[in-house]
Amino acid sequence: MSRGFYIGRFQPYHNGHQSVLERIACTADEIVIGVGSAQVSHTVANPFTAGERVLMLTRSLADLDCPFYVIPIEDVQRNALWVAHVRSMTPPFDTVYSSNPLVVQLFIEAGVNVRSPEMHERLTHSGTVIRQRILDGEPWEHLVPPAVVDVIHEIHGVERLQRIAGSD
Amino acid sequence: MSRGFYIGRFQPYHNGHQSVLERIACTADEIVIGVGSAQVSHTVANPFTAGERVLMLTRSLADLDCPFYVIPIEDVQRNALWVAHVRSMTPPFDTVYSSNPLVVQLFIEAGVNVRSPEMHERLTHSGTVIRQRILDGEPWEHLVPPAVVDVIHEIHGVERLQRIAGSD
Amino acid sequence: MSRGFYIGRFQPYHNGHQSVLERIACTADEIVIGVGSAQVSHTVANPFTAGERVLMLTRSLADLDCPFYVIPIEDVQRNALWVAHVRSMTPPFDTVYSSNPLVVQLFIEAGVNVRSPEMHERLTHSGTVIRQRILDGEPWEHLVPPAVVDVIHEIHGVERLQRIAGSD
Amino acid sequence: MSRGFYIGRFQPYHNGHQSVLERIACTADEIVIGVGSAQVSHTVANPFTAGERVLMLTRSLADLDCPFYVIPIEDVQRNALWVAHVRSMTPPFDTVYSSNPLVVQLFIEAGVNVRSPEMHERLTHSGTVIRQRILDGEPWEHLVPPAVVDVIHEIHGVERLQRIAGSD
Amino acid sequence: MSRGFYIGRFQPYHNGHQSVLERIACTADEIVIGVGSAQVSHTVANPFTAGERVLMLTRSLADLDCPFYVIPIEDVQRNALWVAHVRSMTPPFDTVYSSNPLVVQLFIEAGVNVRSPEMHERLTHSGTVIRQRILDGEPWEHLVPPAVVDVIHEIHGVERLQRIAGSD
Amino acid sequence: MSRGFYIGRFQPYHNGHQSVLERIACTADEIVIGVGSAQVSHTVANPFTAGERVLMLTRSLADLDCPFYVIPIEDVQRNALWVAHVRSMTPPFDTVYSSNPLVVQLFIEAGVNVRSPEMHERLTHSGTVIRQRILDGEPWEHLVPPAVVDVIHEIHGVERLQRIAGSD
Repeated sequence: MSRGFYIGRFQPYHNGHQSVLERIACTADEIVIGVGSAQVSHTVANPFTAGERVLMLTRSLADLDCPFYVIPIEDVQRNALWVAHVRSMTPPFDTVYSSNPLVVQLFIEAGVNVRSPEMHERLTHSGTVIRQRILDGEPWEHLVPPAVVDVIHEIHGVERLQRIAGSD
Repeated sequence: MSRGFYIGRFQPYHNGHQSVLERIACTADEIVIGVGSAQVSHTVANPFTAGERVLMLTRSLADLDCPFYVIPIEDVQRNALWVAHVRSMTPPFDTVYSSNPLVVQLFIEAGVNVRSPEMHERLTHSGTVIRQRILDGEPWEHLVPPAVVDVIHEIHGVERLQRIAGSD
Repeated sequence: MSRGFYIGRFQPYHNGHQSVLERIACTADEIVIGVGSAQVSHTVANPFTAGERVLMLTRSLADLDCPFYVIPIEDVQRNALWVAHVRSMTPPFDTVYSSNPLVVQLFIEAGVNVRSPEMHERLTHSGTVIRQRILDGEPWEHLVPPAVVDVIHEIHGVERLQRIAGSD
Repeated sequence: MSRGFYIGRFQPYHNGHQSVLERIACTADEIVIGVGSAQVSHTVANPFTAGERVLMLTRSLADLDCPFYVIPIEDVQRNALWVAHVRSMTPPFDTVYSSNPLVVQLFIEAGVNVRSPEMHERLTHSGTVIRQRILDGEPWEHLVPPAVVDVIHEIHGVERLQRIAGSD
Repeated sequence: MSRGFYIGRFQPYHNGHQSVLERIACTADEIVIGVGSAQVSHTVANPFTAGERVLMLTRSLADLDCPFYVIPIEDVQRNALWVAHVRSMTPPFDTVYSSNPLVVQLFIEAGVNVRSPEMHERLTHSGTVIRQRILDGEPWEHLVPPAVVDVIHEIHGVERLQRIAGSD
Repeated sequence: MSRGFYIGRFQPYHNGHQSVLERIACTADEIVIGVGSAQVSHTVANPFTAGERVLMLTRSLADLDCPFYVIPIEDVQRNALWVAHVRSMTPPFDTVYSSNPLVVQLFIEAGVNVRSPEMHERLTHSGTVIRQRILDGEPWEHLVPPAVVDVIHEIHGVERLQRIAGSD
């Protein structure tokens, strides 16, 4: 059985992530999705908890045509240990899908096969853009799957982000 | 939507866990399963990694009649912070199913609803008994779901446990 | 018995803090004062140890007309765990006094009553301004209670800050 | 000004501690009391949080005839760093009062003056004995100051300890 | 260039270690020696700091006929990350010499070549025996290289161990 | 015996460090060299692991005319504990050689003798300049000892740095 691995912070999970996952899903038997920086939340750059992000992903991928695992991955603050950490928290995988240069480099040094999927419309779909639109009161709902809109409203995510943004 | 929470170390996942999960699955809309002490592995009492335990659970529960989440939960070494830690890593839940006195007490102090499911045949199905039978070369396969037998063989788990047991 | 909670980094404790504490002291039976980022010291932004800050506070508040506790609070690096951490280190409290947006948000999500006291003369009394004046050799002593001047001199705090500021 | 330092886990604070503190109080201008293993709670050997222990101490010492500080001290898990850690969290002190061999040795290696106060009636007043009596439903209230009885009842400490003791 | 790796806690470094190192030294171009549990000291089972152990090893191996590195290795508390941690702290090596079952298993899973050197006279030369003899005031000096006797005396190691042994 | 202590991050070790070490080597019987921020690697500012840096130093100093120790020093994230941490990991030393203001201040507060060696040609020999030249494809080899060029090539350090620099 072949298993792929894809990781992101998903702050929040958006249409760009969804489009990548739908494309790579067909290329392996199962997909393992790591929710990175799992321990970080309640900051302007990382407003959502790992559990909230797990919920966004699982609901948005309900119709994905291959089995998937969603696994929170806490940071280890040690790049040289990160691949071993990821592997200890996930079912075994043989291919990594990532465009992040550090992730790519760390898995290459560990001898793992890495593919870099194209991320279309990166600018308008990035988490940074979406968080800024939420802060500015501009429309953001069309940039994420409908299930993510639901989750953010259920957890009062707009209010959280706007309040925290007042922090120094 | 009502969501239940169940946690164990699952070293390994066995028929006792499976029987509890099958019974509580019908009582909530979704079940969140925490894989406790996720960061511990390669010891006689905790031979398997979190990722291996996620695999055991997910495969064994393929036919469960309610949606479930399997989430590794690293220890925080601080009992007073543990409930907040669990909540940050999981989708929101309203009921906890546990017979562990410390887990029960910590969730009660946090104001969470706790139910203690009966665990039938606890003695013969406990992780301790199964690990000892693996070490002694006695039959253990009938005490766990078939998918767990497969996972343990795929990862060479018997050899790992027997080698580590020589440690002082 | 009602107990209030007030937290700051107090680098150093200054007249602005003192004025807030004197005003909120009358509104509760007892005040718990958290010394935040207790583990940080010897940096330009955080020159003083937790113990030195405990000393500044306790001496400056000798005449406060309500009982108070001064408790160092180390950072936990996990916003979602911070309220549980604070509570485990302090006597139980029912009201939080804070103007810090993150502190306010975290306690609100935990269901705690929060009041935001006005901080008069914030600009001239801020810790940043005072540390800069110490670095520049300008008068700063009138911006802090007399006991704080004593403590900073006893621990050779001016020399420490000026030497550290040479760091890159 | 001379300042003394005394440290314990205070699980719970009892008459033996009180008697030692009353005797050493007169020998220094101020006393700094460290609440050790501050991060540990909700175990059979360490049932109470640091904040609860701060409350026990402060109330019991209300009539002490010298100023005192009560400071939670988290463990650092590194004996060689422990003295530096304690010093960073406390106002400066010149004498340590301790009968604990490790505490004595670490402060001696750091060049600090150490005195070992006699602890009368050690057996009947030890924390271990008191926790066991609470667990067994035997009288324990006469072994601690009245304020400690109040605190333990307010926080439902008897129920907590008895429930946790069921843990494996 | 071939490089070997050997690890121990060396509490203290003794003739058994010395004899193993002298035998394996000739089989590689260079030897990397890891001082394990580097962060632990001042306990009965681990009385010496990493720096003191580095000194014992370096002096005792002054006449070794191959270049060697002595590297303190702090514990990471995560078996699944330990090999990556060791590799990040040491020059690259291709062979591990160890008789410790856990060390052997972890390096085997990482695909590293492992050889288990015989440890002659294990009983009389073990660290446990030597620490007990120091505690009991029995002769121990003949069980360690002369340089280790010197180091232990310089740092007042006998007094340290005996004082700490009084701890509970 | 007098022992000196010198610490740097050595990202990478360069001619400026070499020149300082050659000058201070004659002033003590032995030199202890700390490799700071040992746990950091694979970032643009800290591309090399501690083990790789140990290799750079040891090979470049093969002809140094005094015995030396090369010791990785992980960060403790607590300035007030850092001197105790360094001392626990190193053989005892009596003099520190450093121009870093924070290092100087921390050792002075600990009562250790500090000397600040001049660092000639600091600008062109700094690690920042060298890492930038590697990134820009400009010549950098003349700024480091020949052994460092070898190590960086053996570990494919140029490729690592250039790939990581694409990270955000």
